[in-house]
Amino acid sequence: MVLETEKKQKKYKVIGTRPIRPDGLDKVTGRARFGADIDLPGMLHGAILRSPHAHAHIVRIDTSKAAALPGVKAVVTNADFPHVPAEELSLGEGAVNLVHLRQNVLAEDKVLYHGHAVAAVAATSAHIATEALRLIDVTYELLEPVLDVRDAMKQGSPILHADLRTRDMGKDGDIPSNIASHLHFELGDADHAFGEADVVIEREFTTRMVHQGYIEPHNATVSWDEDDHLTIWMSTQGAFNVRDQMARLLRLPVHNVRVVPMEIGGGFGGKISVYLPPVGAILSHKTGRPVKLVMNRTEVLEATGPTSGSYIKLKMGATKDGRLIAARGELAYEAGAFPGSPVGAGCMTMLGPYDIANATIDGYDVVVNKPRVAAYRAPGAPISAFACESVVDELAEQLGIDPLQFRLQNASKEGTRQLRGTTFPPIGNVAMIKAALASDHYNAPLEGPNRGRGVANGFWFNAGMQSSLNASVNGDGTVSLIEGNTDIGGTRASIAMQLAETLGIPMEAVRPTVVDTDSVGYNAVTGGSRITFASGWAAYECGMDIRRLMCARAAAIWDLGEDDVEYVDGVIRARKDAAKKFTFAELAGRINSTGAPIIGNASVSPQTVGGAFALHIADVEVDPETGKVQVLRYTAFQDPGTAIHPAYVEGQMQGGASQGIGWALNEEYYYNADGTLANASFLDYRMPTTLDLPMIDAVMVETPNPGHPYGVRGVGEVPIVPPLATIANAVYRATGVRFRDLPISPRRVLKETQGLE
Amino acid sequence: MVLETEKKQKKYKVIGTRPIRPDGLDKVTGRARFGADIDLPGMLHGAILRSPHAHAHIVRIDTSKAAALPGVKAVVTNADFPHVPAEELSLGEGAVNLVHLRQNVLAEDKVLYHGHAVAAVAATSAHIATEALRLIDVTYELLEPVLDVRDAMKQGSPILHADLRTRDMGKDGDIPSNIASHLHFELGDADHAFGEADVVIEREFTTRMVHQGYIEPHNATVSWDEDDHLTIWMSTQGAFNVRDQMARLLRLPVHNVRVVPMEIGGGFGGKISVYLPPVGAILSHKTGRPVKLVMNRTEVLEATGPTSGSYIKLKMGATKDGRLIAARGELAYEAGAFPGSPVGAGCMTMLGPYDIANATIDGYDVVVNKPRVAAYRAPGAPISAFACESVVDELAEQLGIDPLQFRLQNASKEGTRQLRGTTFPPIGNVAMIKAALASDHYNAPLEGPNRGRGVANGFWFNAGMQSSLNASVNGDGTVSLIEGNTDIGGTRASIAMQLAETLGIPMEAVRPTVVDTDSVGYNAVTGGSRITFASGWAAYECGMDIRRLMCARAAAIWDLGEDDVEYVDGVIRARKDAAKKFTFAELAGRINSTGAPIIGNASVSPQTVGGAFALHIADVEVDPETGKVQVLRYTAFQDPGTAIHPAYVEGQMQGGASQGIGWALNEEYYYNADGTLANASFLDYRMPTTLDLPMIDAVMVETPNPGHPYGVRGVGEVPIVPPLATIANAVYRATGVRFRDLPISPRRVLKETQGLE
Repeated sequence: MVLETEKKQKKYKVIGTRPIRPDGLDKVTGRARFGADIDLPGMLHGAILRSPHAHAHIVRIDTSKAAALPGVKAVVTNADFPHVPAEELSLGEGAVNLVHLRQNVLAEDKVLYHGHAVAAVAATSAHIATEALRLIDVTYELLEPVLDVRDAMKQGSPILHADLRTRDMGKDGDIPSNIASHLHFELGDADHAFGEADVVIEREFTTRMVHQGYIEPHNATVSWDEDDHLTIWMSTQGAFNVRDQMARLLRLPVHNVRVVPMEIGGGFGGKISVYLPPVGAILSHKTGRPVKLVMNRTEVLEATGPTSGSYIKLKMGATKDGRLIAARGELAYEAGAFPGSPVGAGCMTMLGPYDIANATIDGYDVVVNKPRVAAYRAPGAPISAFACESVVDELAEQLGIDPLQFRLQNASKEGTRQLRGTTFPPIGNVAMIKAALASDHYNAPLEGPNRGRGVANGFWFNAGMQSSLNASVNGDGTVSLIEGNTDIGGTRASIAMQLAETLGIPMEAVRPTVVDTDSVGYNAVTGGSRITFASGWAAYECGMDIRRLMCARAAAIWDLGEDDVEYVDGVIRARKDAAKKFTFAELAGRINSTGAPIIGNASVSPQTVGGAFALHIADVEVDPETGKVQVLRYTAFQDPGTAIHPAYVEGQMQGGASQGIGWALNEEYYYNADGTLANASFLDYRMPTTLDLPMIDAVMVETPNPGHPYGVRGVGEVPIVPPLATIANAVYRATGVRFRDLPISPRRVLKETQGLE
Repeated sequence: MVLETEKKQKKYKVIGTRPIRPDGLDKVTGRARFGADIDLPGMLHGAILRSPHAHAHIVRIDTSKAAALPGVKAVVTNADFPHVPAEELSLGEGAVNLVHLRQNVLAEDKVLYHGHAVAAVAATSAHIATEALRLIDVTYELLEPVLDVRDAMKQGSPILHADLRTRDMGKDGDIPSNIASHLHFELGDADHAFGEADVVIEREFTTRMVHQGYIEPHNATVSWDEDDHLTIWMSTQGAFNVRDQMARLLRLPVHNVRVVPMEIGGGFGGKISVYLPPVGAILSHKTGRPVKLVMNRTEVLEATGPTSGSYIKLKMGATKDGRLIAARGELAYEAGAFPGSPVGAGCMTMLGPYDIANATIDGYDVVVNKPRVAAYRAPGAPISAFACESVVDELAEQLGIDPLQFRLQNASKEGTRQLRGTTFPPIGNVAMIKAALASDHYNAPLEGPNRGRGVANGFWFNAGMQSSLNASVNGDGTVSLIEGNTDIGGTRASIAMQLAETLGIPMEAVRPTVVDTDSVGYNAVTGGSRITFASGWAAYECGMDIRRLMCARAAAIWDLGEDDVEYVDGVIRARKDAAKKFTFAELAGRINSTGAPIIGNASVSPQTVGGAFALHIADVEVDPETGKVQVLRYTAFQDPGTAIHPAYVEGQMQGGASQGIGWALNEEYYYNADGTLANASFLDYRMPTTLDLPMIDAVMVETPNPGHPYGVRGVGEVPIVPPLATIANAVYRATGVRFRDLPISPRRVLKETQGLE
């Protein structure tokens, strides 16, 4: 549902409509090609041996028996990577430390988590490869694991990396530690402000590692050719990142690596990290043949993905008239086996929905003997929002103010200073909260025992970054659009629609194609909710380029100056001679007889990102006998800026809410004391299904981003931010118990409400 | 060998060197992917039933038995094409009449040549498909065929197309005829000039149909998706032409058709025509599965390719001081079953090497019951050059002038008026003939009986047309270049070299990739010797675009104006501050941290094509017992303009000469009286092998084309123009007999020299 705000006008022809996505039919008919569909002549199948231990030295790996198995063509370990000095790999693109990446994709001297890759085999069939894994003999020297973020921070804790020093305020510590870095943010004077607060609440929260749960496992097929050119077919959110990381890891020129992004069965951030391509590369190099690797679900859960488990202590203070004036937070996020948790984003987004003048936030990035975390939809933000929105809810309660009203009167808006120093541009937070306050859901009675209604707000930055694309005008007036971003959430459509809008032609006249890294200019990851924003902006620029070229061509045909020709609503016409005009298709038909082909190009790196806010309302009922929480009704409000394709915005809102509800109620990485993961299957790792959820109502409250030609903000991430607290606040209203440790599983509900273990 | 002319300077760093071609290793190791390598899930295999008759009505086609064979999924005929009115198909891109194309790829009511496609089958294996062909029952009503161009022009000849009228000087005739069109060219006053000539010679010539002889048979795999998008993987010289023709033939938007050009095993013009994709399309549409079609050699020879057989009458006159002053020619070219012989180009190129003020030339495009002709390397020119260079040779002899000297004193040069009206820009004809005159070969004695030396000249226009490409700068200073032209003769290298030269970086830093029609802007055919010229020009423009973008980025980094920064030899530097400079790679490494990706783009349609000339010298020995002509020594001179990659220019010169020698000595389509082709195999259709030929010496005499940034002319076609006459003139000197009917096969030599049949 698009809520018509007073500012909204129906000024677009294509934007705001709901055409069928270009890749839709291929996907529903099974014709779309995924990484697992790849089959090449002479192709080998790979398999990966993984550690059964959470923490151990690797004393020796004997691969001789495996190598002798008929059909096995190669067995590799970390030692098979080409020697590239660590200092060369520590630098570089983005924040990816390739020394750690190399140790993660095949363990070097230690295994650091249950499921850590140790060796790999390429064989003539997947069955032989799997069989050969059993013949690899690894001698381990077991070490004590550390699994919890608080334990790992303690002095005397088992140390994962002997060379890791805490990076603290730009300086490195001098003793080995599991704390990879300490971040510190300050705004105003929190200590002083707490002194002026009438109500102060301090609480502790914990969350567990949870997985993105993409339906398609990781895969990669790698062909290392005789002339040291690599082709990689795979499921990825960042083909160019894979390309650049592989080039550096293998010390090859960037243009020797071609990454072909296949269709993707979900990513949610978890398909940015690189796991299989380096292993496939050295197997292919050793065998001279293409090698295909596809993970099974257990491997996906044990060794890829999850986002951090966490510990947060948060204190907030308000005046008795309901003004939030101070916050003090400590956030410790599990990074898994290698540094890199999203604690920074957790710190910086936590207070985003609020105009709060004084805050001190400390963040800790902590390694533990669990899989290295990967990005997951608004990385870090749901965890900190869970803490913040729980405390805010409690403050509102203590002050006797309606929780939504409390949020409204403290809402951040244009000009509010953010923790990271900048002030907000025009944002839709206030309009969205007002819409929620006025909504049918919020005003509907909720009757019956064991029921409660909760609300929570959430903020996410969104991202800009680099996008490049181009588009060719065909002779019949259709347009072929070439993009470089994996289409996860319908971005072929949302980009094509912006090009069509710019050109004044139907969306169906534009055919978008996602191509490989050799076939289009650089594009940053499909992530950060940035594609419809930044690649859409590129489509606008590209369209303007085509408009200029079309006008110039018409001017040449009519023997007029370029300024004498204008482009209006898909018609190219002479300003002063009404008889001289071409429709887009008419002029397209004359391109090749009058000069060079007409191709629009654009390459952008937009900085004027519009922040995103989401506010969710949940009604729940808690079964006192089983402890099960049933979501009765759920409404997600969000400011998408201009909703380019409203149906896909709704889909993102519904998907984010669903994942957040799973995180709140059921999902968790369950570790045994020895550090082995006990629930590495979708049977035991419980994600919500359609049977578990009501229809998620999605309400778009559009406040166009003035920093984008069509007012776009990011859409995909922010809807996962509020649900954790939304559900917890609702469960509190139903049970009288504030759950500060996730998930709110039946076991925990029974324990907290009835003392049952 | 590159002959250093006085004008030539070593002013380039990359151009003129001989780097290894980017696709070389893939091709020699078998890793390159050709159309026959395609294998898709659920793919069916197609086979085509072909006519055993040269000329017949199709009374009935009964496909029921074939359709009932287990494994057969579809049987189609011409009636299965979607109904598109003929008037819609007769218009359009290039000169392709799609009504004829549709009738050629699957016969409608008549078969017009032996091998004409009649029906097609898709089945689960190629064997079943072939088996099913035998179960298709076709009832023919036989018609008398006409096989020779002169017979076909006679009144009362069997008529191929009841609706064909002669298009003569823009008007259509009113009675059915096999003469599709009559062309007429005039320059000066030939009748008057013949009156002033001291020597006049008139001769008649005939040539037979010959095939391009590409090693890779035609293939196409077509997938017609549920949403009416087609993907076609195939061997083609013109992916965009295939796309546009298929879209019109099937009445689909252009952007619904994606053509993926696979690597190509030779084309020589014969892989521009479309044969299999329409058939694959309707088979795929009917079955809902991808369908693969691959021809065998017999199909290739019977139903694709050849160039015209011909009849030419040519009269030329010269003054006694050796000045060519008049020419009168009649050229009749066989078009095969449908109009479209290259007689126009034959007429217009024939006199290209000469400054001859008065000429009248008539050309006739004539249909006969043989396969529809296709382009073949300098289409039409070798045939007319054979006639012209034979008569010129005879005139020189009668005038007692050395044949090369005679050519030199009549040579066309800058300003010479051509038959098509325009005058020559700077050309290398004179310099090339002088180089031949001064050469070791021409001055070497040729002793022994039955030996002779011949020379001949040849001219080809070359083409410009549309090219589009783009190139991205990667973070390590390498460049990914995206092109749309099938690489037949090393054009990945020759285009990349021009980009590298422009950027001042090594050729190895540029990685060229040929992509499909969805992934790059419009590119006209790989043909007309145009790729190194036009796509190379686009590479230059693209490089200049990158230089501008790199300077602008450096200016932004240094906080300077764009005009304060210059690009010199791959270094970006501040004009007034020697300390401020970046190498290309240094600045490349900073692109993504300082703004948008840097991508150069170019789209061109250059008009300033430089004409090409070739002069060949052959020494032959004729065995009086067997009639076999042995080529003892052969030297090809050519003006390539600037030779971008000299080794590939040499390769083109050697290849063209080899094909021309085969045409002169052995190759011919041999038809029985009933119109069946008697030699549709490489055993019976005799192409020269390495054992038949000496090393072809290649001498490049470079006269840069002032109409190209790097002086490029076309290279690939003109070397096939002189050999027919070169060999005939040499055989005359060895035997005293002027052979005016090709091929000069042993049979014909014995007949002409000894009266043996």
